[in-house]
Amino acid sequence: MKEIKYGTITTPLGFRANALCCGIKKKKDLALIYSVICANAAGVFTTNRMRAACVDIDLLNLRRGRAQAIIVNSGNANCCTGQKGKKDAWRVVSALAKQLELEKEEILVASTGVIGKFLPVDKIVRSIPDLVDGLDFNKGKEAATAIMTTDTFSKQAAMEINIAGKKVQIGAMAKGAVMIRPDMATMLCFITTDANITSTALKLALKEAVDGSFNRISVDAQMSTNDSVIILANALARNPLICKQGRNLRLFTCALTFVCQKLARMIVEDAEGATKVIRILVAGARSNKEAKQAAYAVADSLLVKTMIAGANPNWGRIPAALGAAKVDFAAEKLKIALQKQVVYRNSAPGGIKREKLIKLLKKKEVEIDINLGSGKHEYSLLSCDLTCEYVRINTAYN
Amino acid sequence: MKEIKYGTITTPLGFRANALCCGIKKKKDLALIYSVICANAAGVFTTNRMRAACVDIDLLNLRRGRAQAIIVNSGNANCCTGQKGKKDAWRVVSALAKQLELEKEEILVASTGVIGKFLPVDKIVRSIPDLVDGLDFNKGKEAATAIMTTDTFSKQAAMEINIAGKKVQIGAMAKGAVMIRPDMATMLCFITTDANITSTALKLALKEAVDGSFNRISVDAQMSTNDSVIILANALARNPLICKQGRNLRLFTCALTFVCQKLARMIVEDAEGATKVIRILVAGARSNKEAKQAAYAVADSLLVKTMIAGANPNWGRIPAALGAAKVDFAAEKLKIALQKQVVYRNSAPGGIKREKLIKLLKKKEVEIDINLGSGKHEYSLLSCDLTCEYVRINTAYN
Repeated sequence: MKEIKYGTITTPLGFRANALCCGIKKKKDLALIYSVICANAAGVFTTNRMRAACVDIDLLNLRRGRAQAIIVNSGNANCCTGQKGKKDAWRVVSALAKQLELEKEEILVASTGVIGKFLPVDKIVRSIPDLVDGLDFNKGKEAATAIMTTDTFSKQAAMEINIAGKKVQIGAMAKGAVMIRPDMATMLCFITTDANITSTALKLALKEAVDGSFNRISVDAQMSTNDSVIILANALARNPLICKQGRNLRLFTCALTFVCQKLARMIVEDAEGATKVIRILVAGARSNKEAKQAAYAVADSLLVKTMIAGANPNWGRIPAALGAAKVDFAAEKLKIALQKQVVYRNSAPGGIKREKLIKLLKKKEVEIDINLGSGKHEYSLLSCDLTCEYVRINTAYN
Repeated sequence: MKEIKYGTITTPLGFRANALCCGIKKKKDLALIYSVICANAAGVFTTNRMRAACVDIDLLNLRRGRAQAIIVNSGNANCCTGQKGKKDAWRVVSALAKQLELEKEEILVASTGVIGKFLPVDKIVRSIPDLVDGLDFNKGKEAATAIMTTDTFSKQAAMEINIAGKKVQIGAMAKGAVMIRPDMATMLCFITTDANITSTALKLALKEAVDGSFNRISVDAQMSTNDSVIILANALARNPLICKQGRNLRLFTCALTFVCQKLARMIVEDAEGATKVIRILVAGARSNKEAKQAAYAVADSLLVKTMIAGANPNWGRIPAALGAAKVDFAAEKLKIALQKQVVYRNSAPGGIKREKLIKLLKKKEVEIDINLGSGKHEYSLLSCDLTCEYVRINTAYN
């Protein structure tokens, strides 16, 4: 298993991409991912009740577990747009299906951007012939750029594994920046692979990878309406078929998880206004659920996030957030370390010098280790600090 | 029932107060509230598991439902300080009891400020003789100032009611500013009354008043470790005894709720960095619990809070927050109004002009009305916007 540097969604065999500006924004805002043959496909989507029209279409089209193309626009989420929004999304799907000479069921669609505005569907449809014409295996990075909203860099990752002597590759791209605390999936992520894998095994692998990556990050505790992670597997690597169980599925899932974790981390690093990545590990919980609840209570505390932003040694905000988390623990057994330095143990301050703590908190990555002392379960996640820049961007973005 | 302008905790008969600087901060940081005779007393406290030592003492001392004095320090929360913290708080209580010639059980104590630092108990104990000597019915406002942390103004309210021809008064003071999303009580609030009321009736009235006021505000979704609302009732108004039921208890509860609501509103108005008060009403919910959950999901959304700060018409953030709230509703039945203008209805944007919405959002008070369309329950609360100033204060406060 090895990472492919500069790999993109067009790295695996048989995938093409393109991107252009159709006029929703003033820069590239429309991307297309295409497999030269129909692929097995799986997706994980937001659990937000106000999900966008595109999510509904994808859930429908993925029932057969097959797809050949994904079209994505940025600058407009096509969410809270009712029946008209649904028709608009279907118009995009139909136009692309016609141009590619495919069935509508073989097309997936995703949107990201402002909620509550109608999609400028004519602009998109008008651009589809050019979008298809320009499909190329060199345009992976351009597609990754076109799906960005307030992201400051494009996010890509790729891995290579060997299955029974055959080289199998996985390529992926994602966008993040804001409204990030996925529950089943996060923002937009598209993954391609030339692996020969059954649709059922693909679903299992994707679910596990997402649970271990995108479902463990939070930028601002806000679950998006358009979260989608979609994978296409076109079998062109000609490896022996990966089925429900066994070593090859484990290997594939492992590589997929690695790719997803890399992208998830990039999303946190590039979160709006963030200057630091915070890794939170909660151990000693009664259950996984409680460990997760405690971890998110700390991750999403504005006071913890601003404390980290300011390299502020006011660690008391961490136990205060934990205490309010409705999770079982006793204050006497709670142990908290910041940057591996104990700040709270045996019901009392850990005694680390204030100046030393400030110095350690100035690092770009901050680790918060918590032991609740009431069980054996643990949970880790990534979060980021909260700065004025986040506030500035979001008082203005519309 | 009428409001008393400029009323304080020393407005009701038989109450005295004092405040001074004992050296925790560079300004007044220690306050004392005293009733000339022992009073019936009740309190409502934080449900945070990491509650401060003073909360434990108050819960113990209030078991008999009687108290005569409350001592409060600002600048140090005496929380996460373990056994030493408890001993420290008891030392303060003992010293004050001795000076006032009372039993320790008749003293209540509260602290607010930084978490995780030991209380400078010698400074407090040394100041107690002066604190007691200076007790005066003119020092209510000074006490209200001494309990402030990052509050920018002191918070007081008072009411007068007539019970069977007798004038009964209620005076109160509170502090807020940050770490505000109470679950059973909020921050610090002290209430005095000369009402003649049983200890059981007093408890009932306080619980109802707090549920209708402090339990309906959120500044930053952070429940404090030291939240305390305490009331003393010394019976000096000589009204017929207010018991468990009946008209007089309803009247008293009504006045008490009014006082608490006034202070709760002041806490939101004076929240760190806030420039606007947001009133959120969720109607049409399946249950009170779901109405509350939906209201808090909107109130605590960073994206909604920054949107209001910027008079930003990006209303799609409200349905996005609701959709993630794990509350039952159908997108087709959801209705959302901002400043009484429908922005979302029948699964589609409400059609209000962008410029008009921006203009309306520039007002100092913003109303968000939500109807989930799935039941008959409702819940309202007060929140505030999120600005760079909040971030600035909390990257630095320690």
